[in-house]
Amino acid sequence: MINVGLIGLGYWGPNLARVLSASDHCNFTACCDLDADRVQTITRRYPAVRGFNDVDALLNSDVDAVLIATNISSHYELARRALALHKHVFVEKPLADSSTKADMLTRLARDVGRTLMAGHTFIYSPAVIKVKELIDSGQLGEVRYISISRVNLGLYQQDVDVVWDLSVHDVSILLYWLDEYPVQAHCFGRSCLRNEKYDVAFLGFRFPSGTLAQCEVSWLAPQKMRRTCVVGSEKMVVYDDMEPSEKIKIYERGVTLRPPSDFGEFQLTYRMGDVISPNLANVEPLAAEIDHFIQCIESGKPPITDGVFGSKVVGAIEMAVAERHWYEEVTV
Amino acid sequence: MINVGLIGLGYWGPNLARVLSASDHCNFTACCDLDADRVQTITRRYPAVRGFNDVDALLNSDVDAVLIATNISSHYELARRALALHKHVFVEKPLADSSTKADMLTRLARDVGRTLMAGHTFIYSPAVIKVKELIDSGQLGEVRYISISRVNLGLYQQDVDVVWDLSVHDVSILLYWLDEYPVQAHCFGRSCLRNEKYDVAFLGFRFPSGTLAQCEVSWLAPQKMRRTCVVGSEKMVVYDDMEPSEKIKIYERGVTLRPPSDFGEFQLTYRMGDVISPNLANVEPLAAEIDHFIQCIESGKPPITDGVFGSKVVGAIEMAVAERHWYEEVTV
Amino acid sequence: MINVGLIGLGYWGPNLARVLSASDHCNFTACCDLDADRVQTITRRYPAVRGFNDVDALLNSDVDAVLIATNISSHYELARRALALHKHVFVEKPLADSSTKADMLTRLARDVGRTLMAGHTFIYSPAVIKVKELIDSGQLGEVRYISISRVNLGLYQQDVDVVWDLSVHDVSILLYWLDEYPVQAHCFGRSCLRNEKYDVAFLGFRFPSGTLAQCEVSWLAPQKMRRTCVVGSEKMVVYDDMEPSEKIKIYERGVTLRPPSDFGEFQLTYRMGDVISPNLANVEPLAAEIDHFIQCIESGKPPITDGVFGSKVVGAIEMAVAERHWYEEVTV
Amino acid sequence: MINVGLIGLGYWGPNLARVLSASDHCNFTACCDLDADRVQTITRRYPAVRGFNDVDALLNSDVDAVLIATNISSHYELARRALALHKHVFVEKPLADSSTKADMLTRLARDVGRTLMAGHTFIYSPAVIKVKELIDSGQLGEVRYISISRVNLGLYQQDVDVVWDLSVHDVSILLYWLDEYPVQAHCFGRSCLRNEKYDVAFLGFRFPSGTLAQCEVSWLAPQKMRRTCVVGSEKMVVYDDMEPSEKIKIYERGVTLRPPSDFGEFQLTYRMGDVISPNLANVEPLAAEIDHFIQCIESGKPPITDGVFGSKVVGAIEMAVAERHWYEEVTV
Repeated sequence: MINVGLIGLGYWGPNLARVLSASDHCNFTACCDLDADRVQTITRRYPAVRGFNDVDALLNSDVDAVLIATNISSHYELARRALALHKHVFVEKPLADSSTKADMLTRLARDVGRTLMAGHTFIYSPAVIKVKELIDSGQLGEVRYISISRVNLGLYQQDVDVVWDLSVHDVSILLYWLDEYPVQAHCFGRSCLRNEKYDVAFLGFRFPSGTLAQCEVSWLAPQKMRRTCVVGSEKMVVYDDMEPSEKIKIYERGVTLRPPSDFGEFQLTYRMGDVISPNLANVEPLAAEIDHFIQCIESGKPPITDGVFGSKVVGAIEMAVAERHWYEEVTV
Repeated sequence: MINVGLIGLGYWGPNLARVLSASDHCNFTACCDLDADRVQTITRRYPAVRGFNDVDALLNSDVDAVLIATNISSHYELARRALALHKHVFVEKPLADSSTKADMLTRLARDVGRTLMAGHTFIYSPAVIKVKELIDSGQLGEVRYISISRVNLGLYQQDVDVVWDLSVHDVSILLYWLDEYPVQAHCFGRSCLRNEKYDVAFLGFRFPSGTLAQCEVSWLAPQKMRRTCVVGSEKMVVYDDMEPSEKIKIYERGVTLRPPSDFGEFQLTYRMGDVISPNLANVEPLAAEIDHFIQCIESGKPPITDGVFGSKVVGAIEMAVAERHWYEEVTV
Repeated sequence: MINVGLIGLGYWGPNLARVLSASDHCNFTACCDLDADRVQTITRRYPAVRGFNDVDALLNSDVDAVLIATNISSHYELARRALALHKHVFVEKPLADSSTKADMLTRLARDVGRTLMAGHTFIYSPAVIKVKELIDSGQLGEVRYISISRVNLGLYQQDVDVVWDLSVHDVSILLYWLDEYPVQAHCFGRSCLRNEKYDVAFLGFRFPSGTLAQCEVSWLAPQKMRRTCVVGSEKMVVYDDMEPSEKIKIYERGVTLRPPSDFGEFQLTYRMGDVISPNLANVEPLAAEIDHFIQCIESGKPPITDGVFGSKVVGAIEMAVAERHWYEEVTV
Repeated sequence: MINVGLIGLGYWGPNLARVLSASDHCNFTACCDLDADRVQTITRRYPAVRGFNDVDALLNSDVDAVLIATNISSHYELARRALALHKHVFVEKPLADSSTKADMLTRLARDVGRTLMAGHTFIYSPAVIKVKELIDSGQLGEVRYISISRVNLGLYQQDVDVVWDLSVHDVSILLYWLDEYPVQAHCFGRSCLRNEKYDVAFLGFRFPSGTLAQCEVSWLAPQKMRRTCVVGSEKMVVYDDMEPSEKIKIYERGVTLRPPSDFGEFQLTYRMGDVISPNLANVEPLAAEIDHFIQCIESGKPPITDGVFGSKVVGAIEMAVAERHWYEEVTV
């Protein structure tokens, strides 16, 4: 079994530590953070894990693979050093803070023959996979548009804005579901609390097939929402991640246009069928994700969310942000 | 009591007829539609009402005021003729299909000394009025952003797209609540069923005070949503018109930024207080709206949604539509 | 077409008047109430209807059939007089205030060869019919238990308690679904506002097949609930009449017992399948009910909710009330 | 700091282990279970904890206090032995399988001067405490009735039925809130899967003040419900533990009776006020409960859920079960 080290023990790292320690497919042998308290918390909880304050020390220990869960701005440099030492590398989303850097990591991983994976956890959740199957099977028909709301009160990230935090999830889901890359994108938002850091934003995307997508993200919303609506020409799906048990509802509903009548009025036919909530596997996405990383290392196959995928996500965000509207707005 | 006539008995007209016939403040004396069957349906239901197939005949009957509930493209011409005959005029939203025409009606009404009112029903609903009070009282603090979803399956309008149908409601609510006019606006959407007629669209607005607003409208959504979220610096409000009894929830919640600490990290304070659903008056907005029209006629005071207001709504829509993104998209 | 008269224009009568006046299958020719104002309200709204203050005058007019929507205590006497004059009779639920009287009406109707129907509206609603189909088809398996909550704030009836008002609905639904008559029943409740008139009650029933049922009814509950849960050995159904669009959910879920293991511990297998909300016909139950009454008159076939059915409902309530617990309780 | 041992590592024990190991107020030093695998799982996770397969060995180790989370039938004997060795004892609910045994434990604890506490976790949850405050402050007025639904699919207990598992929670909450003991009680239910073990039951209670209570419990329900409705003469409360954030709603609503009018008809006044969801402390009930146990040991004060309280809960269940209806029913 391969040995795995964990770099970064802040907000997200402890979740990865929990999953690594419970995994039967790898040995969780080392962890690292600049903050000694954080390291101690983890090594106390998992006594078999060695703690480091220095990344290079960890990288030079017995680890075969590392998980990087640090601030986004450090992703590239840490991943580069790990790959250079021929470690397999898992980087929390987003893969890097620019698609150029993401591409460089992708090339480096290929050159050294190691697995590089971006941590887009939602891609490994039963609900997102189920919607992917519905789209790929053609059951939904043509995907007309997708509308996503991912809002809540907090949790602010220190180094990035809400776009680089929350909408990365949505873009990864869109690219996974649609299997195409946007041809147009834009973004408008507002920096309510910090200068030049959006805490609310609305992103729009248009895909080559005509599919439209809109993502609403906010750290300033009173109710937590994790709602995605996929409107197909045949069926429609609402995926509400806040629902405890019926996360996905498939609506056998639609509208069809008939040729205009003699009076030039168009005629619409409404289809109103059943609503189905498919039973979903009871799998923790994070555990499935880590399992996938280990399996890809062992099999040599590319992960679903490999460097190429991770770079596309970053690129689509860049495309939207480049078309920022009203960037000049007054900030508090 | 004044005599009132109703022009246009299609989808919305029968609702106006019901309210007019139940009103103690006016006499519902005449109705008119090009379709004789529709006229007969109304005159059978309300035997005291005279039916006309010709607008000019109705206008030359004993009516003091008319309600116009016809296709949007005919609003201007019908309202103009009624005003020219010195009738008081109520026009269903939007007031006209261009702000130029809306302005002309406004001037004409002033010249002839008659009441002109645009039928923005939501402005007369207890929930919208309650949010207005919350904003005006300063309880919400600075309004940071407003996000609105108004989506459902159907009902397609023959002559207009979803922007000119549904988002007119949202823009009227925004202008009423914020009491300012957008400085920037845009719109992107898709024509899924009919050429060059959006059935889904996303509108964005920026107001002089910095408030951002986004409106999602769709005729192609599986679940009906009528959800508005108003995020203030002090409190936040969710107004969900689909809720049978608790339409408004006031969240005593927020985030405040404190000066950065020594390490340059910002500090946030979260306020988590109660959630309050104020009891709302049990008033039918449509009845309140018609009452307001009658009262304004009698008092000579301008309606809340007078010609100037109605014209601003049309103008804001025009501003957003002029900034249509991706207008060239392929249509089915 | 037969001529129909309506007796009783209080709370429920105007709804029947609306449906009668819109029906293409009968002539709504007469109405009657002791209160002259109520009569006038109806005759103004429906000018073709003659108004009476005296029941005998209405019964001696041209009506072939009457609908009785008066206080429960008057049901028997009014229905008896109408049947004696060879009118077809529809009586709002419950058919009478005792099963003895209900049986007498049933016999009288048979003797004079006229249709007698009890107005159990829910039996004609698409949702209740759908659950009946699910039970009868065997899809649910053995019905283990049914739990019903029918609670809200108000509306108090003058002459009866909450059991004789609200739980009559539930008992009619239970008898219709299960097609059997309870072998045991009890009731406990409390008279909070009026002496010896329960405003909250809990009824329990056991049926010969073993099915258990419990009905919670209240006029003193903060949230309106209309929730029914049917637990079968194969599938389970939740029917929530407050849901605007997905009133029925079929859960393909269950628990199966396997033989005890060596250690004497029982083993359970849980089945977790999809949840399906079947599309329901968009029919107004009240209109379907009146249509059924007219059709039964014309065809001579007994209504689904005929006198025998209506009497059984009254009898089951009597059985539960006879086993009232804690009847001696202190009242305010 | 006192040393604490944990007896019983089945379904619930690991939760107690997690809370004990995270507590700053005690040392979690020992655990015990007949199943060696379970012991190993815990000692691996918490290396500082010694594992035992023999209860007497644990009781003779350095522990000052024990938590007992075994099968209900063993509660009495294990608690007795621990108290006899002068250990402080926390017993998971219910305290014992009969009130006689519960009383004996209570007396023994008093005789040896040790703390005895029953593990009624809900009594330490912020929501239940908030409702207690509302009742005690008189804000709700007279408590007219309480209706509780605690249903879900599974989890079956090996040794007890659903009454002794789930309704113990509800009875503890009722006794805590109302501070009185029922004068009447009954229970009816059905044994669907196992002989003479109810998997669905309905319990009724009447309290001296007149308050009525009903508890619905089921292991065979399709949707998980944890809903409690408290109807007071002044205000009403719904406490829904399935709600992620607004668990309590206070309805400023009610009905008041006025003296009958001249016509003998009663008059009701409805009060319709705001609905308030108070912000609740973000405390884990289990952690608060264990803290309370430790504090009571240190201060010598009796716990809120002491032996007397725990015995009353058992007694009220016995009272209801003694009045079982339809016990003779056929089982599958």
